[in-house]
Amino acid sequence: MRITEVVITPIAMKDPPLRNIHGVHQPYALRSILQVRTDDGLEGLGETYGDRAIVDALRLVAPRLAGLDPFDLNWLERIVRETLGGVAAEATHGLIGAASASKTLSTVFSAFEVACWDLQGHALGRPVADLLGGRVRDAVPYSGYLFFKAAAHVPSPGYPDDTWGEAMTAEGIVEQACRMVDEYGFRSLKLKGGVLPALDEADVILALRDAFPEHPLRLDPNTGWTVETSIAVSRKVEGVLEYLEDPTGGIEGMAAVAREVSMPLATNMCVTAFEHLAPAVRQDAVQVVLSDHHFWGGLRRSRELAAVCRTFGLGLSMHSNSHLGISLAAMTQLAAATPELTYACDTHYPYLVEDVVVPGALRFVDGSVPVPTGPGLGVELDLDSLARLAEQYEGAGFDTRDDVTPMLAIDPAWDPVIPRW
Amino acid sequence: MRITEVVITPIAMKDPPLRNIHGVHQPYALRSILQVRTDDGLEGLGETYGDRAIVDALRLVAPRLAGLDPFDLNWLERIVRETLGGVAAEATHGLIGAASASKTLSTVFSAFEVACWDLQGHALGRPVADLLGGRVRDAVPYSGYLFFKAAAHVPSPGYPDDTWGEAMTAEGIVEQACRMVDEYGFRSLKLKGGVLPALDEADVILALRDAFPEHPLRLDPNTGWTVETSIAVSRKVEGVLEYLEDPTGGIEGMAAVAREVSMPLATNMCVTAFEHLAPAVRQDAVQVVLSDHHFWGGLRRSRELAAVCRTFGLGLSMHSNSHLGISLAAMTQLAAATPELTYACDTHYPYLVEDVVVPGALRFVDGSVPVPTGPGLGVELDLDSLARLAEQYEGAGFDTRDDVTPMLAIDPAWDPVIPRW
Ligand SMILES: [Mg+2]
Ligand SMILES: [Mg+2]
Repeated sequence: MRITEVVITPIAMKDPPLRNIHGVHQPYALRSILQVRTDDGLEGLGETYGDRAIVDALRLVAPRLAGLDPFDLNWLERIVRETLGGVAAEATHGLIGAASASKTLSTVFSAFEVACWDLQGHALGRPVADLLGGRVRDAVPYSGYLFFKAAAHVPSPGYPDDTWGEAMTAEGIVEQACRMVDEYGFRSLKLKGGVLPALDEADVILALRDAFPEHPLRLDPNTGWTVETSIAVSRKVEGVLEYLEDPTGGIEGMAAVAREVSMPLATNMCVTAFEHLAPAVRQDAVQVVLSDHHFWGGLRRSRELAAVCRTFGLGLSMHSNSHLGISLAAMTQLAAATPELTYACDTHYPYLVEDVVVPGALRFVDGSVPVPTGPGLGVELDLDSLARLAEQYEGAGFDTRDDVTPMLAIDPAWDPVIPRW
Repeated sequence: MRITEVVITPIAMKDPPLRNIHGVHQPYALRSILQVRTDDGLEGLGETYGDRAIVDALRLVAPRLAGLDPFDLNWLERIVRETLGGVAAEATHGLIGAASASKTLSTVFSAFEVACWDLQGHALGRPVADLLGGRVRDAVPYSGYLFFKAAAHVPSPGYPDDTWGEAMTAEGIVEQACRMVDEYGFRSLKLKGGVLPALDEADVILALRDAFPEHPLRLDPNTGWTVETSIAVSRKVEGVLEYLEDPTGGIEGMAAVAREVSMPLATNMCVTAFEHLAPAVRQDAVQVVLSDHHFWGGLRRSRELAAVCRTFGLGLSMHSNSHLGISLAAMTQLAAATPELTYACDTHYPYLVEDVVVPGALRFVDGSVPVPTGPGLGVELDLDSLARLAEQYEGAGFDTRDDVTPMLAIDPAWDPVIPRW
């Protein structure tokens, strides 16, 4: 089995005006869809960020893959490094920590690596989870991801913004949570913070606790707070959160908070690559790492991260960016074969109003996604949807994620300084 | 593909009187050979220790494997744990650190796990290295393993003891090394120490350095020395060793030596399971870990160990016990797919005078074993040899490794105290 052709399609999918520390989601989230074809007529799928720098890097690598054996992930890694080593742009956005050339390499590698796993699964007639050591769970629990949210994009691109309605208060968030729990059955809830003043967000958490006394709760202000504020918030929600995610920036900052608070600190911002693990462990800066195969270097490296976490007594959860069904399938296959994963995974999927995969393979049952049992990732590309979302990308009017510009349209006086409180 | 039958055959292979801290190798080394068969007519091979407690544990697990999918390593692990959890004997010998029930679990799991990888490879028509991410080297470098050695077993079982002749002096070891380098092409040399007084072994190292100015050298007294002696030896061979292996016992002891010496310390005795890594890293006790799939829990866990070592800046080498071709094939497939392995692997293979695999698949070229390219492990069982070595096991007169008793036959006054110097 040898790779003969790679097709990379940047797409734009409608995205509601979800708020975060940087501002607000743009009307479209950008993704890249990969189709990797082989000489025996198989096709493997991949999905990653759609930012221009990533698309460019994917397109530099793609022609180098002809002749590659999809089982040879070490060779794939070498090709990506050789192709991009000198030119890798720093192309990741601020919510997953500092951009770096090595993170771009991992990100580009991962997109192709997932497509290779999909191909391996198709060649074998087995789901990817089988190739990762076998399912330890038949369904993967996800958390209900709660966002402060504007009513509508400004200006509105005709997106059905009101799908989830405005949510800028405790009441709005509790209402959102009720719908998440009613419609999807989520058993954990995560609030994206960094939007209201820090102690007000603690009040929102307390309101969620009142409304959902049994649901594990998380709060993630994306390093929006100082060390002092982080400690003050922690005192206010003592015993209420299952973990507090990236309250402040940097391993030193997290370590300073960790020394003063009793709840576990989680991160997908200060530990985002293998080289961050040793200093984080030495300083006992974090107690839970959120894996994300998109920037940790694919499914195999994510399994390695799980092994490191197990070995050093760190908890393991999973991070999400706005994504489509290919990524949800990859996240689910990976999580199904990862015993170390002890927390429900994050996902933006409920906010999605359009997808590139044929409906039916992915669904939420009691807050969990049953692991697709078809070969490979277990999802199939819907070519009409792909074409439509590719057209949408051409008309989106931007090619790089930027949460600041649309935020200035909502609030012209808005200051993106971090930490903010 | 489902497992239908498992055959476990304990065997005894002739072994020369190699010396170590515990005494001397018995006239036979004991191993277990596993044949794991599936409903589609495939057979996977495994090899591990042949001590009675391990054989008993393997035989307890074997009947539980009927119906198992050889891809489902997580399920296999669960079965081993469930079967042996309460009854796992402490069945490993002293040269790989303290015995423990959890090490027995890992050891038993590993033997079946390797057979499952062999089956996966046969099902796919691919070498195991392909399934581990692809070869990063076409041949795996091994080190020439030098042993102080008696002339003959006492009493002699008719074994061709003189194959390698007596070697109890610097001259004898240099002569052994010359033959290792001439016949096999080894480019690294390792001396098993703990036999002569410590500073005399440093002299042997200096003699090896004179004879082989370019070959990386290692010395391994298997925790035979005190911290003070370890430091004194280190001063004497400063700049000469690529690493000093287990000079003294325990993580604390190794850390005390590491603080005082400049050369890297390696171990296959104080870090022998994942739970030892965190304390070893925290104390900076070792700089190189010798992996060994036989007790680290198989090929997948060994890849995880490699990832931990890479992440925490530890070097990675590979440990050997007396073994046959199935283990050499597994070690070679694993090493071929492990970029983190930066040292030549150890092997006892040159001392072997009989094997259970069909000759031809494994050979040494310039000190390296070319990775077998056939499906699975790439080796085939020789049923006549297996039967002969099984018969030899029945007549061996012992069923558990014990280096002390034969040593007392050589030297009735010998005292096995550790540390000795
Ligand atoms: Mg986060
Ligand atoms: Mg050793």
